[in-house]
This record gives sequence, C-alpha cells and structure tokens, in this order.
Amino acid sequence: MTTRRELANAVRALAMDAVEAANSGHPGMPMGMADIAEVLWNDFLAFNPGNPKWFNRDRFVLSNGHGSMLQYALLHLTGFDLPMDQLKRFRQLHSHTAGHPEASETPGVETTTGPLGQGVANAVGFALAEKVLAAHFNRPGHEIVDHHTYVFLGDGCLMEGISHEAASLAGTWKLGKLVAVYDDNGISIDGEVHGWFTDDTAKRFEAYGWNVIPHVDGHDPEAVKKAIAAAVAQGDKPTLICARTIIGFGAPNKQGKEESHGAALGKSEIAATRDALDWRHDPFVIPQEIYAAWDHRTKGEVAEQAWNAKFDAYAAAHPELAAEFKRRVAGDLPADWAEKSQAFVDKLQAEGPEVASRKASQMTLDAFGPLLPELIGGSADLAGSNLTKWKGSLDAGTGNSSDGKGNYLYYGVREFGMSAIANGIALHGGFIPYDATFLVFSDYARNAVRMSALIPAHAIHVYTHDSIGLGEDGPTHQPVEHLASLRYIPNNQVWRPCDAVESAVSWKVAIERKGNPACLVFSRQNLKHQQRTAQQVADIQRGAYVLSDPQDTKFKAILIATGSEVELAMEAARTLAQQDIPVRVVSMPCTEVFDAQPLEYREGILPGWCRARVAVEAATSDFWRKYVGLDGEVIGMTTFGASAPASKLFDYFGFTVSHVVDAVKRTVG
Amino acid sequence: MTTRRELANAVRALAMDAVEAANSGHPGMPMGMADIAEVLWNDFLAFNPGNPKWFNRDRFVLSNGHGSMLQYALLHLTGFDLPMDQLKRFRQLHSHTAGHPEASETPGVETTTGPLGQGVANAVGFALAEKVLAAHFNRPGHEIVDHHTYVFLGDGCLMEGISHEAASLAGTWKLGKLVAVYDDNGISIDGEVHGWFTDDTAKRFEAYGWNVIPHVDGHDPEAVKKAIAAAVAQGDKPTLICARTIIGFGAPNKQGKEESHGAALGKSEIAATRDALDWRHDPFVIPQEIYAAWDHRTKGEVAEQAWNAKFDAYAAAHPELAAEFKRRVAGDLPADWAEKSQAFVDKLQAEGPEVASRKASQMTLDAFGPLLPELIGGSADLAGSNLTKWKGSLDAGTGNSSDGKGNYLYYGVREFGMSAIANGIALHGGFIPYDATFLVFSDYARNAVRMSALIPAHAIHVYTHDSIGLGEDGPTHQPVEHLASLRYIPNNQVWRPCDAVESAVSWKVAIERKGNPACLVFSRQNLKHQQRTAQQVADIQRGAYVLSDPQDTKFKAILIATGSEVELAMEAARTLAQQDIPVRVVSMPCTEVFDAQPLEYREGILPGWCRARVAVEAATSDFWRKYVGLDGEVIGMTTFGASAPASKLFDYFGFTVSHVVDAVKRTVG
Repeated sequence: MTTRRELANAVRALAMDAVEAANSGHPGMPMGMADIAEVLWNDFLAFNPGNPKWFNRDRFVLSNGHGSMLQYALLHLTGFDLPMDQLKRFRQLHSHTAGHPEASETPGVETTTGPLGQGVANAVGFALAEKVLAAHFNRPGHEIVDHHTYVFLGDGCLMEGISHEAASLAGTWKLGKLVAVYDDNGISIDGEVHGWFTDDTAKRFEAYGWNVIPHVDGHDPEAVKKAIAAAVAQGDKPTLICARTIIGFGAPNKQGKEESHGAALGKSEIAATRDALDWRHDPFVIPQEIYAAWDHRTKGEVAEQAWNAKFDAYAAAHPELAAEFKRRVAGDLPADWAEKSQAFVDKLQAEGPEVASRKASQMTLDAFGPLLPELIGGSADLAGSNLTKWKGSLDAGTGNSSDGKGNYLYYGVREFGMSAIANGIALHGGFIPYDATFLVFSDYARNAVRMSALIPAHAIHVYTHDSIGLGEDGPTHQPVEHLASLRYIPNNQVWRPCDAVESAVSWKVAIERKGNPACLVFSRQNLKHQQRTAQQVADIQRGAYVLSDPQDTKFKAILIATGSEVELAMEAARTLAQQDIPVRVVSMPCTEVFDAQPLEYREGILPGWCRARVAVEAATSDFWRKYVGLDGEVIGMTTFGASAPASKLFDYFGFTVSHVVDAVKRTVG
Repeated sequence: MTTRRELANAVRALAMDAVEAANSGHPGMPMGMADIAEVLWNDFLAFNPGNPKWFNRDRFVLSNGHGSMLQYALLHLTGFDLPMDQLKRFRQLHSHTAGHPEASETPGVETTTGPLGQGVANAVGFALAEKVLAAHFNRPGHEIVDHHTYVFLGDGCLMEGISHEAASLAGTWKLGKLVAVYDDNGISIDGEVHGWFTDDTAKRFEAYGWNVIPHVDGHDPEAVKKAIAAAVAQGDKPTLICARTIIGFGAPNKQGKEESHGAALGKSEIAATRDALDWRHDPFVIPQEIYAAWDHRTKGEVAEQAWNAKFDAYAAAHPELAAEFKRRVAGDLPADWAEKSQAFVDKLQAEGPEVASRKASQMTLDAFGPLLPELIGGSADLAGSNLTKWKGSLDAGTGNSSDGKGNYLYYGVREFGMSAIANGIALHGGFIPYDATFLVFSDYARNAVRMSALIPAHAIHVYTHDSIGLGEDGPTHQPVEHLASLRYIPNNQVWRPCDAVESAVSWKVAIERKGNPACLVFSRQNLKHQQRTAQQVADIQRGAYVLSDPQDTKFKAILIATGSEVELAMEAARTLAQQDIPVRVVSMPCTEVFDAQPLEYREGILPGWCRARVAVEAATSDFWRKYVGLDGEVIGMTTFGASAPASKLFDYFGFTVSHVVDAVKRTVG
C-alpha cells in the first residue's frame, strides 16, 4: 500500500527532475505544495482526465504558476494526455510543458498563469460564472451546474494589488464554492518575506468577508483534508486556507530557502533529496503502484457519467433549457443571431442616429442583449459613463435583483481585477463577458488585457472616453498612447468606430470572435452619421474600407481616419474637392483586422501607387507611419492632452479641417 | 468671529460655484471633506504659501483627485499664488486649475492625482523619503528633516489594488508620519457602495500594521481634530482615520447621493445650498473676515523662518552635511559627477566587458552608486534577476541594516505600488529613485510609469529580461509590445542598450534627466562589446548613431537595431560586405532622444536618399515603420513568444543573419 507521502513524493521527484533536465524552472513550490495537491486531487477534485473539458468538473487554478511542474506532474500522474516524454521536455520549444501553465498548450490547464495574482482573479471569475450559470439553469432537483473552484496561491499573489481587488469582490459576491489555498512558505525571490511582507493575511481576508482557516500544516495530509472538507462544507463565504509549508520540502540543504525557489537543485542536492525522501527511483521513473494510486481515469469517467445521467434527467424535464444550456457551454451563438444582428446594423445605417459611440454601444446592447443571455456585462464603477448597462441588465453579483437572470457585475473601481475576472468567466464557459472603464485606465488592467489575447479568452473590453474628446477631466484621464499600445498586443483586436453603424458592427464582430478577445473603443462626444452603400456596410468588418471616393475622377491622396476623426477627414475631403484636389477617405475602425485581409483587398483600399497619405487620429502619431510611410503625414498627438472643453482641445491640438487640408496639400506636393 | 463651519463653507461655495461655472467637475467630495480639510489645514498642516517649495513643509496629497476644487479652494484661501480668476477658469484651457490637480500647473500641488489609488502610493513615497532623508541627514539636536505626509482618499482609492500594495509597504516600513484620511461617504459613481464594496476597511488596515482611528464624524471639527492629533502623536505606525462624511454636504436635495459626485449641482440646488448653509455671498465672493481667518501667509513665513534658523544651527555644527543636504534637495548632481561618470563610460569602452546589459547596469551602479548617495534603488522581488543591488546597497525600508545609510527598498511583488511610490520619492526631493521588474511586468505598473512622465517625476524604471531572450519562462514573461508601448508615452525616454558601454550611458543620461523619468531596458543574456571611436561614444547620448559604415564605399542600405539585435545587425553587415553589399549599421538605443535631435543630425544618420532600410528588434515590428517607411523591412515580433531556451527562440522567430541579409537584399532590390 502506497502512503500519501509516497504519492506526494512522486510529484516532488518529477518536479525536481524536470527542472534539472531543463536546467530551468522552479522546483521549490511543487515540492512544498505536493502534500496539499495530493490531498486535493485525490480526495476532492472532480475531473475526468479522459475529457478535460467535461463541463461540471471542478476548476483548478495554479495562480503561483511558476510552480508549473506541480500541475504537469498532477496531470501526468492522474492520466491526462500528458505523457512522460512531455515532462522530459519541460520548457522546450513546442513541448506541452511550457515554463508557466498555458491553457492553449496543455490539456487540463484551465487558464494560463504566471503573472502573479491574476490566477486568483481568474478563479474568482470561474466561481462567479459557476454561481450565475447555476442561477440561470439549475432547477429544483436538477443541479446540473455544481462545482467548486480551487486556487493555489503564494506570497507573491498576495502582495499583488490584484489579489485585493479579486478577494474583495469574491467576498462581496459570496462565492462560497471558491477555495483558495495559500502556500505560506515565508520565502519569495528576494529571500525571507518578513522584510517586505508583514500583512496579517488571515485578518485581511476576514476583512473581505472570507472564511479563513489559519495555521494548517501543509505537510500533514489529515490537517489539509480537514481544512478542505471544512471549506467545502461551509456556506456562502469563499475560503482561504493558510497552509504553512516548507519550500523545496525534502531537499535537505535547500529546503526552506530561496535557493530552492527558482533554479535547478543540482545533481548532488537531488541525490540527497532522493535519500531524504527515500525515493529510490531513477529520474522520470514512476513505479506502477504509484501510477495506479494516482490514476483518476476510471473515477473521472464515472463522475462524468453520473453527471451525464443527471443531465439527461434535466433534459427530460426541461428540454428547452437543456438545449439552451448545450448551446451556451458550446459557445455557439443563437440560430437567429446572424440575421437579427445584421438587421440591427442595417437599421442603424438607414436611420443614422448621431450619438456618441458610447451611446451607440448602449443602443447595440439594447438590441443584442435580448438575443444573447450569455452576455454578462460590467464596469469599474463607471456604468453611467461607459453606458454598459442596457435595459435588461440585472445585478448578478450580489444577486439582490438577479432572480436567476443576473447579467451585470458592479466591479467597483477595480480595473485589473475586473478584466482578469472577465478572463475567468470567459474560460469557464457559458458566458461572453464584457467589462468597461475609461480608455486611459486600460493601463490599470493592462496585463489582464494582454492575457485575454494570450490565453486566449473571449472577453470584450469596452473603453469609452477615447481621446482628448474626454475634455475637462484633463491629461490624467485622456488617452494618447493607449490605442497603439492595445493594437500592439498580439492577437488583440481594437475597434474604434466612427459612428453608430460601425459601433454596432464592432460589437457584432467582437461577439463572433469565439475564443478571442476584442477591445471596443468609444467616444464620449457625439459623432456624425456616415452614408454607406450595402457593400460599404458589409466591408466594415474587414477593418477598413473606402468611405468616400471622388466622383468622376481619380483620387490624388488618401485620408485615413478612425473614430471621431473620420468626420473631420470627410469634411477635409469636401474642402479639398472644392479646391480640385480629389481625395479618398478610408475609415479604418480596426487596423488588425484590416492587416489580416488578403493583399488584394488591402491594395484595393490603400494602393501602392498613392503615397500621398494622411492619417488622422487623436492618438499617438507614430503608429500611423505603418500606413502613411515616410512620405505621408499624420495629424495625431505627440504630447499629453490638457484640461479644457473638448472642442477647444481639438482645435488646440490641431484637429482642424485646415490642418488636414494643409497636410494633404503637402503630401500631394 | 468666524466659525469653523463658515470657513469650511467657503470651500464648499467655491467648489460648487466653480463646478457650476465650468459645468463640469466634482462638487460632492469637496463639500463632503471641507470640514476635515479646514481642521487639517488650519490646525496641523505646516506650509508656507509664499514659498510652496519650502523643503520641510508637510506634504498634502489629494488621492481622490477628482475633488480638485477642494485643493484649489484651500490653496486660494490660504494665500498661495492662485487668484480667484483661476478658480473662475476651473477646467479651462491654460488655467492653473485643471480638472484634476497637476503638480506642474498649480503652486502647492505636490503631485498630480486623479488616477485612483496612486495618490496614496505617492504619499507613501513622500513619507518614506522623509524618513530615509531624516536618517541620512538629521543629527542629535538637529532634526532638519521632520514633517508629516497627509493624504485624503476615498472609496475608489481603497477599492484599487494599488492601495493594498502601498498600504502594506507603509505598514512594513513603519511610516509613523503618514496620516491618511478616508472619506467614508458610502457613495461611488455607480451609487451606494454596499453592492460592490463591503470590506471592513478598518480591519484591513489593522492587518497591514496601521494605527486605525475608526468612526470619526467628518463634520465634527473637534472629533476630526482629536483624531489627527492622535495620529500625529502616535509612534511608528501609519494612521488611517476613517471619517464618516456626507457627500455634497449642504446640498439639501443631492447630498448623500451619487448625483452630487460628478456633475454641477445646477442653479436651483446651488441656491438651496446657499440657504441651507446660510452662505449669503455671491459666487466667487469671499468676505474679508473669512479670507483673514484662512490666511496662512504670516504663519507660513514664520514656520519657514524658524526652520531656517534650525538649519543655520545645523550648518554651523555640520557644515559639510548641510552643503550636501542643499545639493541633494536642489537636485543638483555632485561636482565630480560629469567627470567621473564619463571616465567610467570610457573605461568600459576600453575594456569591453561582454556581459548581459542587466549585469552592465549593475556594474554601472557599482561605479555611480558611490558618487550618488541620492540614488535609492529597489526591485519588485527580483533583486537577483534585475541586478539592482550594488555593493553599497543597504535596506532603507525596515531600517534593520540601514544605520542612516539606507538606499535600497525591497518592494516585494508590487510593481504598480513600487513605481507610484517611486514617483512620490522623486517628488519629495533629496532622492533619485530607481525601481525594477521584468520588462513584461511594466504592464502592472503601467499607469504609474505614465504618471512619471506626466507629473513629471525623476523616477528611473529599470526593466530587465527585455525580449524572448528571457527564454524558458515563456510568453507570459516575454515582452513583445512593451518597448513600443513605453516609447509612446509622451515625455518618456526608453533606453535599450546594445552593450555595457551603452548601458552605462543610458544610466548617465537617465540620472542627468532632472525632473523627468526614463525607462532602462536590459537583457537577460550576454551581449557582445562594440568598438567605438570617442565621437561614437559621445554620440550614444544622442539616441542613435552610426555604429559602422562601410570602408571606402558608400552604403546601399541601412540596418537599424537596438539592444541584443545590434550584434546581429553587425554580423549581417559583415556578411553583406562579403557579398559586395555595403551597409550602414545604426545603433538606436533611444528613439525619443534621437527624434529630438536637430534635423541635420537625424539626416546625417538616416539620410533621406536611402530608403533601403531594415530595422531589427525582438519586439513589435510595426513600431519601426516610422524609420523604415513602406519601402523598408522589419525583422521583429508579430506574435507572442514561446517557452524554450533563448537561442532556440531567436532562431525560431527569425532573428538570424540569413533573415537579415535576405531582408536587406530585398530592400536594395
């Protein structure tokens, strides 16, 4: 009979041996948390290695993602499709065992972690999604959505500000099925944490309304088991288990020290560790009885089948709900989506409302919201400014007004936590989350937005007040570099629509971008409506299109603009036409989507022969050199903004017809 | 005799009238905090309106900066150079009363606030600077550095994650002279906060080791006075005063409601407020007796003169220290700085060490550190990776090992708090702070880095592991878009040196950039040394220079590179020379500095006739279109990185001699 310690030691051995083979990685955390992980995975966690995507599995998040070998060892030992050969290729090109866990690379990894603190927020998103989805779909006697979310976290996660934002919301939202285990090993990269981390963490989490289980010996399986059981048994509070562990447990000379944190232990220490742990097997060799004890495949299959039977009963009792549930968790859009969403776009083109694009966004939500119960919105305390609430918005967080239909989250002033939670909600399934703040405060959420693109996760980030057009609040609140910075995130899509029609299309494309994120950037101020043919309307979703060409003559220059500057470009084009300088106007609401079009399309919009190009955008000028080259000009921003009414600022910073006209004349020569 | 309430009502009236005149702004907070501010400014705060920069003044930070009219009213009433005309021009172009307080615009404003939570962190920086500077300079009987830092903050600041990071450090650092007043008004933009903010804030701050004074009636001056006095009297804990207030106090129909938060009250409500407050004066009219009671000019002058006398006694007893103190607070560099720093650069050029630029950075700190006791370093728990500790580094935070010479801060894993604290330290004076993390985690600190440039503040941000060269940690840790994103922040300078010499120059320039920030970006991996003439060495600080030109022939193409890709460009140039394609190599460690050179210099480096240009940088490709235009090519990154050894990644992502050579051949045609 294998002991619990032997099972945990298998994880320790794999971790230290893989790090040694790679000569890179973090053995200390896996060795320190192995006993805890063993108890959680063998006694509590519901999952099916044969179907990592089984919907009602418990979610496990490794927020201290540098300890990735812990997760890879667990996945391997329990029977996921992660063979030993992959563990041997830890941190090598094209392996499925990247330096930090990546959801897109490794079966069984729920989210990509490593950037500290975000895993905690992802986990809050998972738990919130579970709770709200259960409210949407569960019926008396039919608890088809019913799982826990477990998250491991370390001192680093707790020091990060995002842990405050996420934990505060988890308490407010009463996420009773969220269980966090704090690896309290007293060590971070710079050494013993007491010189820079003196929080009373238990007290802090109690202040957030959490259930805290302090002083658990993380190397005593019975104590760990008791703590997790208590966490699972309690009601509507999230639980923090504070588990005292020894980093690098088992390495006689390096355990409890920073040396075991982020580097290979080295041959002699590994040999000594084998002795100390009484682990008498070669590197990457796991005895059959250990494998057998860890093997979760049958147990997982049984669990999933039991759930399938439950679901069948549910489907028999509530066939329509069951069909809708299947659609939601598959991430498919409703059958009538394509038709009805396009009809709304066409209606806007016909009616031509002249509103701020943030208002157009809200009108779009009013149109799309009823079609899409999976939309779950929110804002970082700017609902009335971002206009993210629509007629059907109901509080899903505290549940006071949700009644099983909650679809809106009051995130408070917590931009980073918000976007990382949105990533978790998206990854959980059953929802398309959107969040919102002022564009300038995308800075606060920045790495979570990057993670949306990297994981990837289908989270839609709404950013209003998109330029100096914000006006009086001044340069602290006026974005300048943000558009370019967001566009440069690989796999991101940034839309900056010029009117209500483009705004609706941007939402449509973002909603249809299954599995991948988008940023929707809207104006504070009203925007003119643009006339378009049906073809032009259709071409919006190609990222850029010709909004206006001269009649009966060939253009001599191209004006490229986005958002609020499109109407300026159009006006300049009219002025230039009067001066016999025919100009094409290109509206380019999404540069990334345009760049991904076939060369033929792109050449059709921006033909190589025309180097007389002027880009106009109230944001970083230099970004546009990509399209106007060295011969063109850019009317953009090169400094911070200022505090004044918007119209004064547009004049002051040169966004005037005469400036644009002059620039075109210079490029035409 | 005027009452305290009348004095406070003057602030309320100015706030509501200025917001009304601008039809924009936030009356609620100033009206709610007026009583508290009146007590603090009249009974405690040491300052001299006639000399806003008097060094030993108390620092006052309005972290809830949207209530800017509170601060403007206080500055105006106490006698700063902020005449009524400025208050009438609240939020207008070129006024000194911007929407949010801006340190560069308004005398008496210590730091620019508005982005929530950062004022709290700035204040922690002020308090830390005071403590460490006192340890550097105070001598028995001579307490020349001895002031408090007061910060006002609201619910929004407390929800932000950065409040956690900053408060945790303030507790650990035992900043007993930091006094925070929490405007607990129960309202944020979305309404009553209980739906999204349920923290037990008092308990939370106790968990950080703060002295918390709960349940203070923010409209009872005696209660407020007692609380502040208790805060000032206590020892080594920072204090949080939780003051219950009514937002928009005095507005009979809007007080206590979100409606008073962020919009003008409107004519009728203002009239009603005048009645309710019994304030019988026209807009922008302050009776003489109210002015007289507020006037702080004499009191301030007396306070400064008393300190001057103290300083004279100090100077008599410690003349060298006094001279050094004057230099430090003036922000002047030592007399021998120019010579010795240049000598170090020249020595590196002669010796040519081939080390990682992060190592070269540390060597530079070892050389510059002894010259600059004002340098105060730190890292977000990556000291051994960022190599930010030098031989003379001593813990200044907990003071355990500082002995009056502390110059290093263990920030823990708190990037955002770190950089906002660094801004505070820089603004306090007496120090040049540098902080550090991996380049990818500049994301976490992003808006504080922006604020360094906007305020501006002389904070140096060190970012190591600058590309896929980071290797095995994988895409979560590999920057791609970060270089371009940081460069696009107005008034920022981003240096990415190619060898030890450029690394030392980057430090030199950053240190000499008085009052303004820089980002220094260093490699993880070793970099080759480049040969240079004295002129080339001198030209490094122009941001770009010709590192290599073909001999005896004119170049046909230009290779532009930065950092680790310079050696690749040089190798490609040698290969191309063998194939009779003469190429110029331009090293461009800082694009912003190069862009600011006279046209003649820029043309000398990148002559317009040569459009065959190829840029090479292991970061966002599109950034470089600015220099290579539509005819050139870029060898850069268009996707996220991957987890693998660095050399494999450089090959995999195309940073190879053959790729560069092929690109040059295509551009030459």
